[in-house]
Amino acid sequence: MKLTSNIVPLILLVLLCNKYEYGAAKRSTYIVHMDKSYMPKAFSSHHHWYSSILLHSTAKSSLPNNNKVNNKVKTNLIYTYDNAFHGFSAVMSESELEALKKSPGFISSYPDDVITADTTHSTQFLSLNTAAGLWPASDYGKDVIIGVIDTGIWPESRSFSDTGMTEIPPRWKGICQTGQEFNSSSCNKKIIGARYFNQGYRAESPDSVITMNSARDVDGHGSHVSSIAAGNYVDGVSFFGYAPGTARGVAPRARLAVYKVLWGGGVSSDILAGIDQAVADGVDVLSISLGTNRIDLYENPLSIASFGAREKGIVVCLSAGNRGPFTRSIRSGIPWAVVVAAGTVDRWLAGKLTLGNGKVITGWTTFPARAAIRNLPLVYNETLSACNSAELAQAPDQSIIVCDVTTGNTGFDTVMRNLPDSNVRAAIVIAEDPRIFRFNSFPYPGVVITPNEAREVISYAANSSAPTASIAFQQTILGTEPRAAPALSDDSSRGPGLSYEGILKPDLMGPGVSILAAYSPYATSTPTIGNNIFLSTDYTLLSGTSMACPHISGTAALLKSAHPDWSPAAIQSAMMTTANPLDNTNQPIREVDGTVATPLGIGSGQVDPNRALDPGLIYDATTQDLVNLVCSMNFTSEQTQTIVRSTNYNCSNPSSDLNYPSFVALINFEDIGRVLTRRFERTVTNVGDAAAKYRVKVEAPVNTTVRVRPQTLVFQKKNEKQSYTVTIRYNGDIETQHRPGSLTWIEQSGKYTVRSPIMVSAGADNFS
Amino acid sequence: MKLTSNIVPLILLVLLCNKYEYGAAKRSTYIVHMDKSYMPKAFSSHHHWYSSILLHSTAKSSLPNNNKVNNKVKTNLIYTYDNAFHGFSAVMSESELEALKKSPGFISSYPDDVITADTTHSTQFLSLNTAAGLWPASDYGKDVIIGVIDTGIWPESRSFSDTGMTEIPPRWKGICQTGQEFNSSSCNKKIIGARYFNQGYRAESPDSVITMNSARDVDGHGSHVSSIAAGNYVDGVSFFGYAPGTARGVAPRARLAVYKVLWGGGVSSDILAGIDQAVADGVDVLSISLGTNRIDLYENPLSIASFGAREKGIVVCLSAGNRGPFTRSIRSGIPWAVVVAAGTVDRWLAGKLTLGNGKVITGWTTFPARAAIRNLPLVYNETLSACNSAELAQAPDQSIIVCDVTTGNTGFDTVMRNLPDSNVRAAIVIAEDPRIFRFNSFPYPGVVITPNEAREVISYAANSSAPTASIAFQQTILGTEPRAAPALSDDSSRGPGLSYEGILKPDLMGPGVSILAAYSPYATSTPTIGNNIFLSTDYTLLSGTSMACPHISGTAALLKSAHPDWSPAAIQSAMMTTANPLDNTNQPIREVDGTVATPLGIGSGQVDPNRALDPGLIYDATTQDLVNLVCSMNFTSEQTQTIVRSTNYNCSNPSSDLNYPSFVALINFEDIGRVLTRRFERTVTNVGDAAAKYRVKVEAPVNTTVRVRPQTLVFQKKNEKQSYTVTIRYNGDIETQHRPGSLTWIEQSGKYTVRSPIMVSAGADNFS
Repeated sequence: MKLTSNIVPLILLVLLCNKYEYGAAKRSTYIVHMDKSYMPKAFSSHHHWYSSILLHSTAKSSLPNNNKVNNKVKTNLIYTYDNAFHGFSAVMSESELEALKKSPGFISSYPDDVITADTTHSTQFLSLNTAAGLWPASDYGKDVIIGVIDTGIWPESRSFSDTGMTEIPPRWKGICQTGQEFNSSSCNKKIIGARYFNQGYRAESPDSVITMNSARDVDGHGSHVSSIAAGNYVDGVSFFGYAPGTARGVAPRARLAVYKVLWGGGVSSDILAGIDQAVADGVDVLSISLGTNRIDLYENPLSIASFGAREKGIVVCLSAGNRGPFTRSIRSGIPWAVVVAAGTVDRWLAGKLTLGNGKVITGWTTFPARAAIRNLPLVYNETLSACNSAELAQAPDQSIIVCDVTTGNTGFDTVMRNLPDSNVRAAIVIAEDPRIFRFNSFPYPGVVITPNEAREVISYAANSSAPTASIAFQQTILGTEPRAAPALSDDSSRGPGLSYEGILKPDLMGPGVSILAAYSPYATSTPTIGNNIFLSTDYTLLSGTSMACPHISGTAALLKSAHPDWSPAAIQSAMMTTANPLDNTNQPIREVDGTVATPLGIGSGQVDPNRALDPGLIYDATTQDLVNLVCSMNFTSEQTQTIVRSTNYNCSNPSSDLNYPSFVALINFEDIGRVLTRRFERTVTNVGDAAAKYRVKVEAPVNTTVRVRPQTLVFQKKNEKQSYTVTIRYNGDIETQHRPGSLTWIEQSGKYTVRSPIMVSAGADNFS
Repeated sequence: MKLTSNIVPLILLVLLCNKYEYGAAKRSTYIVHMDKSYMPKAFSSHHHWYSSILLHSTAKSSLPNNNKVNNKVKTNLIYTYDNAFHGFSAVMSESELEALKKSPGFISSYPDDVITADTTHSTQFLSLNTAAGLWPASDYGKDVIIGVIDTGIWPESRSFSDTGMTEIPPRWKGICQTGQEFNSSSCNKKIIGARYFNQGYRAESPDSVITMNSARDVDGHGSHVSSIAAGNYVDGVSFFGYAPGTARGVAPRARLAVYKVLWGGGVSSDILAGIDQAVADGVDVLSISLGTNRIDLYENPLSIASFGAREKGIVVCLSAGNRGPFTRSIRSGIPWAVVVAAGTVDRWLAGKLTLGNGKVITGWTTFPARAAIRNLPLVYNETLSACNSAELAQAPDQSIIVCDVTTGNTGFDTVMRNLPDSNVRAAIVIAEDPRIFRFNSFPYPGVVITPNEAREVISYAANSSAPTASIAFQQTILGTEPRAAPALSDDSSRGPGLSYEGILKPDLMGPGVSILAAYSPYATSTPTIGNNIFLSTDYTLLSGTSMACPHISGTAALLKSAHPDWSPAAIQSAMMTTANPLDNTNQPIREVDGTVATPLGIGSGQVDPNRALDPGLIYDATTQDLVNLVCSMNFTSEQTQTIVRSTNYNCSNPSSDLNYPSFVALINFEDIGRVLTRRFERTVTNVGDAAAKYRVKVEAPVNTTVRVRPQTLVFQKKNEKQSYTVTIRYNGDIETQHRPGSLTWIEQSGKYTVRSPIMVSAGADNFS
């Protein structure tokens, strides 16, 4: 190419080469949304156009002259985006940004933002619990492509073997990007795409070291979520003897395309680039287990990119975040993504404590080895029970000591840190903090028991002349004991979503506590023994909504395979209306502290993949429906356009009443003390095989009446649509801030029940 | 039964009830050998007879009168023996013993003796390395019964499952003795017999606690040796990730009958009782991995009981002991047992040390977890390399430190004990002591390397500005690298046998270093992490001649199954003449320090089960031949009778020239400086299928000539016998105390080579 008539490529090169040379003015990374219809025809690509705009903005800005003289152009284009949305990210000074805002086609801009993964390291594993129905119906997700936006992948993990996988579908446009310790053979028929994005991170943190400059996962998080969504079958997996069995993803025959965007930290510009590329490559489902602090939907990269992905028919699953149990802790309450809460599973990783009198208590432990604790002296002494180093030094050698962390004098971590320097052989830790019961770092032999269970231990120790105890490790208990499951994880973020309260978030709950899945053996966050022994493992337990999200992505992939014609809204609706609000004791799903959870914690309930295969009715929605929702949000036209882009959509029919399978009735500040009425209209599509008749059943929230018209829906054939209205009349009292209820369409044979949660909720303006 | 005419049963009851009430006189347990032909016809059983004798001895002795008045008869019958030999054991005072010696039929007596198991806990596993030949030929040892005299068995071990086992042969007369945590369902078609014997131990140590009063193994040793001999197939076994694979015994379809005689300690009287019962029950092979301090063959319970067992056609395998590498460290050099030395195996449990410069060193480790040691700072500093606590405190946090235990300033155990209290992440230990390379307790992350390998590490650390290293754990390397195998374990006891020098001992070598086999999860001797974390495991690595012995017992069981008509001598001969004196690099088997091993260490060499199936020729021997040998030993008639018992055998043909497949020519004190001649006569039996012609090949010891006549043996048919003579002429110099050689009959087609080691050996009287 001759550098005569078109100067842009040369300029771009200069820009890239100078990326890390910062001038005197404070410079930051900004993400800029552009209306591509403004692009002059002279430009051969959006990339050239954006580069040109940037150059002009720099020229117009107040940079010191010597910079220009030295030809050190300080504007740094990081990415251009053209699939999920149109625009670019670049390092600019504020004055440069101001200049840029005057460019034709500029829509909006916002600073790049730090993103983190949604993981809490913790303690328990649940097998997927998917019955046979959806798997054969979907051919196990064969040929559905799940894009994972995360820390990359450990390609050698047995979970990513392509044994049993067929040829890659020709529609796939992605690549296997080579990089550090990652070459073309790192991909296979399971990992069909791998790319990495860190230009934004390097611009944001020029001094930070990229430890693995490729899609290779040295953190473990990306491998974990990828294997949950679509890991192949692997026999003989366990977490150091706990939760032994066969590992496999929700969609074991689905493909994975990984986009590494997290590098210790991560920034919005890289994440946008990853999602943008995933959309271009042709993924069917996006699994995004990461969070942002951005609240506004028009500045939240997940919101913006998800909208674009959704428009292309891609189901987007997002983790709700791990900021619970506080109300309004969901940041990305994005109406066009499936936002996923995390629940416990029916598997208890146990240490079986046997007292010398024969009494057995099923404590909890993940001590990562089979310690020999047999018939050792049991010591309970209230003055020693803080188990700080002074107390432990007084404990008899070779004993089992009872440590009480409910008193406030000590903590679980403190006890564990002090034990290795003692001559004590094991600890019985009395605790009630539910978080302790999912730690996966349990570095010294012991078990955790509740204060209630501890009474028996203390009584026996006090009343026996020579009390002894034994502990059996590596016990795995399935079922309803010692605790019902699922229970809502205490740290799962709660609705209402800060970004938008009009749609109930989270949407669904999935297993997200102590999930065993593939890991990177290079990971630095690993189980330990003692204070200095760090273990490496190919499979580990992690907890958090990060782990719940790929359960939903995997389910969505299976549904996509079983119903290729279903829209993202239909797939989401199927999962939501069939979700289970009850636990395995047929009681309402509870918080881990025992109180009943509300839809603000669990959304519609625990995903039930087999029921989602055949939901009876679905609530569908088009992209225009989503645009109408955005148009109702009182955004500026630029803000609106940032989300919906300069497409053919218009704002002539703004409506907050999206055809969504859940209902929210808000109480705003001015409504306090009044009787309010909120009216909804919904249209359901019969996706059952034949004519059907449904009757509505309502569980009204307290101080609320719910009227549904009609009360019966009659369908003559498949794919027929019927509409109904819901009128919710409720007291604007904020004593009972959040009042759950539900509306269920029950097919007369009982085959289908199509349930939607109802929340009467105090609006954020009451509590900000 | 009416207690009128026959008072004996009543007396016996009294005796048993008073077992632990000791009088003023010092009392000990004695084992008494009796000539059963003296038993008066009035006694219905030997048991009654012995009881009566004991009662009379007590009456005649000088016990205080008040004891008799109180009817507290102080003589305690512990066991009566009637199968391996005739006699009993009892707690007596010396005066009572003197009285007893006057009883008709008394042969000999000696004090009971403390026995210990032959285990050195250590570091490596070898699969049996038995090629296919003998297994199918023997039907995998089906229906051969191996009696194991040891610490009992852990019946729940998967190695003792009876999956695939057929019905118990009707000839079996043993029982499943119930006891603590052991009931009839603890036995199955694999464990067909289980008994326990501790009356002698309780008499010897009345204050000691029997922790598990049944055949249940709470030590691990008995389960380990049992599974080596005849364990069933078990997939997925490893030692904490090392040596992974399928576990199975040498004779996986053979039966096990276990006789628990060891209780923390053990005594001769219990061992005699166990062997005696095993003979009565009908075992085919006895596997005895334990040692005694008794040297004289007529007071050594293993010698006495083995003779009786051998007479009944039972092959007896004994561990040589773990008192090496010192010459004359074999205590039980019993001519009528197969005495087994221990060798290494071709499997190296490795930690792969990778330096920052890319250099890889295969160190040794059994750290029982997969520690994460990756790209950490490498510290070599001569002043820190003692790695005592003061030095470790000065090492940088999170570093890998080089510790040198060759300097004498520190030791491996010291380093390991100090590391957990440091902030060091791992140690590279420089060591040359071969014992370190088989420890199975490696409680902190690290690898052991040799001084030679260390040079590269030190050089790199000295010449790099920021040296780093990584260690990969749980590596298992098979084959000839890093060391040839088998090598003679340094602690395997060496001949000549103290009890008798005229027959070369040990006979054979078997795998006995770092053998992975079943273990008792109750075992207290277990691998550890840090200083206080003891691990429990179902399979562990153990080292010692205890582990070598059941490899030979198992092989004997296979041969017994393949050749049911073969005598114990024939089976022993087949194993010995086909044993391999070379290692897997085709060099002579060496000591672990690199010097060539002699037959005093390895006997005929490493057992080769497949060749033993079809040895060509065998050296057979009858019980009378053994009697003739005993008669040549210059024992008193009582001593002789203690071994051979009052049978039909007589001492009219004493001969030290047993028809044995090895040759020993001694140099006694009076022979020094003289030229000596020793002549041997041997008879071999053609067990090949057809006519055959053999020619002799001799490797003469130094300063020795060996003449064989004839030099060719021609057999016309199977089972034909031919004799030959060997004349060894040697200098009586004791500069070269032990001079090895060999004599091999080579079949002309090369199909058979029948090898016997020759040792010209300085006699004990030169060196006592």
